[in-house]
Amino acid sequence: MRFSRLLIPTTKETPNDATLASHIYLIRGGFIQSVGGSGLYNFLPLGKKVLDRVRSVVKEELDKAGCQEVSLSFVTPASLWEESGRYEKYGKELLRFKDRKNNEFVLGPTHEEMMVNLVRQSVKSYKQLPLNLYQINLKFRDEIRPRFGLMRGREFLMKDGYSFHVSEKDMKREFALMEETYKKIFTRLGLEFKVVEADSGAIGGSGSKEFMVLADSGEDTIVVCDNCDYGANIEAAVRREKACEAKAPETEPGKVHTPDTTTIEALSTFFDADPYYLVKTVAKRALYDEGKSEVVLFALRGSDELQEVKACNAVNANDLVDISEEELEAAGLLAGYMGPTVVPEGVRVVLDNNLKEADSMICGANEKDQHLAGVSFEGMAGDYHDIAAVQEGDLCPKCGSPMRYTKGIEAGHIFQLGTQYSEPLGATFLDENGKAQPMVMGTYGIGVSRLLAAIIEQNHDERGCIWTKESAPFDLQLIVSNIKDEAQVALGEKLYDALSAKGLDILFDDRKDRFGAKMKDYELLGIPHAVVIGKKLQDGLVEFISREGLVKEEVSADDILDVVGERV
Amino acid sequence: MRFSRLLIPTTKETPNDATLASHIYLIRGGFIQSVGGSGLYNFLPLGKKVLDRVRSVVKEELDKAGCQEVSLSFVTPASLWEESGRYEKYGKELLRFKDRKNNEFVLGPTHEEMMVNLVRQSVKSYKQLPLNLYQINLKFRDEIRPRFGLMRGREFLMKDGYSFHVSEKDMKREFALMEETYKKIFTRLGLEFKVVEADSGAIGGSGSKEFMVLADSGEDTIVVCDNCDYGANIEAAVRREKACEAKAPETEPGKVHTPDTTTIEALSTFFDADPYYLVKTVAKRALYDEGKSEVVLFALRGSDELQEVKACNAVNANDLVDISEEELEAAGLLAGYMGPTVVPEGVRVVLDNNLKEADSMICGANEKDQHLAGVSFEGMAGDYHDIAAVQEGDLCPKCGSPMRYTKGIEAGHIFQLGTQYSEPLGATFLDENGKAQPMVMGTYGIGVSRLLAAIIEQNHDERGCIWTKESAPFDLQLIVSNIKDEAQVALGEKLYDALSAKGLDILFDDRKDRFGAKMKDYELLGIPHAVVIGKKLQDGLVEFISREGLVKEEVSADDILDVVGERV
Repeated sequence: MRFSRLLIPTTKETPNDATLASHIYLIRGGFIQSVGGSGLYNFLPLGKKVLDRVRSVVKEELDKAGCQEVSLSFVTPASLWEESGRYEKYGKELLRFKDRKNNEFVLGPTHEEMMVNLVRQSVKSYKQLPLNLYQINLKFRDEIRPRFGLMRGREFLMKDGYSFHVSEKDMKREFALMEETYKKIFTRLGLEFKVVEADSGAIGGSGSKEFMVLADSGEDTIVVCDNCDYGANIEAAVRREKACEAKAPETEPGKVHTPDTTTIEALSTFFDADPYYLVKTVAKRALYDEGKSEVVLFALRGSDELQEVKACNAVNANDLVDISEEELEAAGLLAGYMGPTVVPEGVRVVLDNNLKEADSMICGANEKDQHLAGVSFEGMAGDYHDIAAVQEGDLCPKCGSPMRYTKGIEAGHIFQLGTQYSEPLGATFLDENGKAQPMVMGTYGIGVSRLLAAIIEQNHDERGCIWTKESAPFDLQLIVSNIKDEAQVALGEKLYDALSAKGLDILFDDRKDRFGAKMKDYELLGIPHAVVIGKKLQDGLVEFISREGLVKEEVSADDILDVVGERV
Repeated sequence: MRFSRLLIPTTKETPNDATLASHIYLIRGGFIQSVGGSGLYNFLPLGKKVLDRVRSVVKEELDKAGCQEVSLSFVTPASLWEESGRYEKYGKELLRFKDRKNNEFVLGPTHEEMMVNLVRQSVKSYKQLPLNLYQINLKFRDEIRPRFGLMRGREFLMKDGYSFHVSEKDMKREFALMEETYKKIFTRLGLEFKVVEADSGAIGGSGSKEFMVLADSGEDTIVVCDNCDYGANIEAAVRREKACEAKAPETEPGKVHTPDTTTIEALSTFFDADPYYLVKTVAKRALYDEGKSEVVLFALRGSDELQEVKACNAVNANDLVDISEEELEAAGLLAGYMGPTVVPEGVRVVLDNNLKEADSMICGANEKDQHLAGVSFEGMAGDYHDIAAVQEGDLCPKCGSPMRYTKGIEAGHIFQLGTQYSEPLGATFLDENGKAQPMVMGTYGIGVSRLLAAIIEQNHDERGCIWTKESAPFDLQLIVSNIKDEAQVALGEKLYDALSAKGLDILFDDRKDRFGAKMKDYELLGIPHAVVIGKKLQDGLVEFISREGLVKEEVSADDILDVVGERV
């Protein structure tokens, strides 16, 4: 296509609210345009083209894996969300509204209910299973703080797939197939990614994996092992049990007067004890359905940090929020001196698994200026969970090597859902004996519009985008340096026709602009390759550019078709 | 693809609310599924496939014509609608809602404001024009009475395109190009259609054409001339001036006592006058912005009928509603005796163009039991408009032949918009002299999901759908009659591979069902061709079926590949 006829409004101005490279370059390159600065975006011609290419890769691989594409209504009756119990639970990201007849609807942020509703109406028998249905469609989440461009918008394009099975075993087979299919998709898109164990979050279910595009700007912290393939979101990461080389403190069991000793650090000094032997007690307010809440004390070793998602899951709350000193006092608790062994009525205690059987521990006494020494958890009953965050250097649960942190962008997520939705919504099938059984489900998502941001976060330099082969809006940019030079134009037109005839998708920069401006645009747009027809054409030479590293080579004009054939 | 693995939930049950063939067959064939019976639909795998095929035809032809695809946010800030003045005006079909921060949004029912906003931010100079941008995207209109399946749903897929020009002349050039492009699209989709003059409705502007798919079930009445290519929606149709062979009534001018003579028929008898010489006076309440309204008398010849859309446009109202006798009395009017010549204060009068210079007319005197005879409109000042409906037999404005009515489904609509949106929204460009000018716009829509219904309305029989070549979900259905017969299955598999290898998209009915059930499904699904491998395979014969007319031919199994090659 001819640049002169396309709407590609490139600009030098960085948007005020943009900090991420992808946000800056997608706007500056005229791929997308903000609508009122509220997490809503228009895709301009170039952005739409990239979106379509990414969408095609996703669709092709899913179709090959036997998935079937459908398209569900975006506007969704609230009644379905009431059936599943999520209408109340989902929080304010679920945009609820009424139509002119006062019926309640939501803008689908995810479509479990809709898809289960579709299938419960269409599928009756085990003979119709398994099924894997997906759509690539709009979603809306009313984010409190939409940011980072396409990374965390409110309206976005998502591929959401749902599979239905007669058994857990068959669902796990499909889950594995989807893992392989997603790997193919991300590989084709040219992404460096890692499949990690993940928390299942609000969608629920057991067993889930995330596809993390590795990038320093990623919002997610991932724990990875370089020795084996283990990787997990910090929200779900586990480790080998931690030992401590330091000696246990020898303080006599019983109460100890500890004025002004309210931090792990101060306690460690006071008792000359490694934090491993101290109990860190963190108070949170856990929020549940229907406005219910309670105060929870989360206790773990002083050498560990609380992992809030794990903690939230441990009490099955919708959210955990911080608690003020006044609220603590009202609950009969005292900041700095809390402990899990003596607690006021009505306060719930959750213990980290690492405290199981722990001995010679020191913890708060729930009294001013008092700690308890020589506390033993041996044989102590309690509500034990994994609530500690894995730390850098902790040992891999699979191979025992030290692990490290890295950053990732969540671009895909696959879940083993089980019967969490099929049961309340009554999606059953008749088995071979004619008995009704709930369908076993899996669910599989890819953030399609977010992928555009993820690709650029991983593939850019200080000049602009560097699109990967299968995501690029064009295969090659053909630049005529001086549009008034007849020989340059003639060769440009000839190459444009010849390359197009070969099936290549060419952006032909035929604009009257200065050469410098055209090159700046080329660097910003980030098409993988370019051919520049410039002054050296007098000597029979043109330039072949690879956008990655901006590698420039002089090539004989006679050979350029061959070079492009080999390299693009 | 294998039928056994696809979700195609065919059913014999006709949905309760369905009267149109397309509604019935699209549901019964498992193409779409109603979501809570409120004008929302899911597209199941087969429906999605048809939708994608139709979408591809639309996209291919638009791209060839130089249009550029974009994708605009479906959730749209209300502020843009306030800028254009439509936020108040649009009525309840515009779904308005607030987000969690209490900001106002709408679900886009059409995207003029959004597209003008996009362009005013991106285009500064005449050098960047013309531009024709389109999207194929969701729309939502909160219809008071969603019905007829995909024909009048609330959420639907639409292609909406908008062009931007430096001049009226250039816009008209593009308008003509779009007319040609739309003709190509509807022709490729195998539709019998008519391009007709149309009313511009709420979108406004001057000069618009509709693409009507001809079908008895169409909601629109179209006036067509069989002698030339003239055609128009009845809302916009015009005719040659009508003459009357009957003699004018000779009643003396002045008031005539006309007790119980309140209808045109009664008046015609009473005065022994052709209705042509009577004045029909219709009272309506015209509704305007901000709750304003007024009583309007529309006067036309007694031989004509009021065309309400024309009448509404004549007073530039948002709507016309009927008026009760009490309201009439309150306005000083009397049903049956109203006339346009003597009216109470505050009542507006609109005269039909056909009354201009009319003589020897009889009309109500706005007094009980009184009419006026010998009324002449010669030289009479007044608010004259075309407000009469063209009738069957009226003469074509182009060639003078008698015209007739037919029914159509509006599948496309193209408008010459002018500067109606660019002016209020400030979408200007700098012309060659550096002077800011408002862009001249055109707008072009196709009801993409509605097209599925329109295709079936025009192409079905009593057994089911008959898809056209370019809209069909598959090219051919391959049916193995008895899946337990090894020879049949072997040939089926062989043909499936061979035909697929030829690039044909085959639905392979490999199900264990009875042959009769498979044929019923074939007839319902309406794929253009089928090959049936049945008992006669023993004699080396298979059956080739054309769905249109259900024409069945016996073909040698050895020749079937050639026959399919020639005919499909």
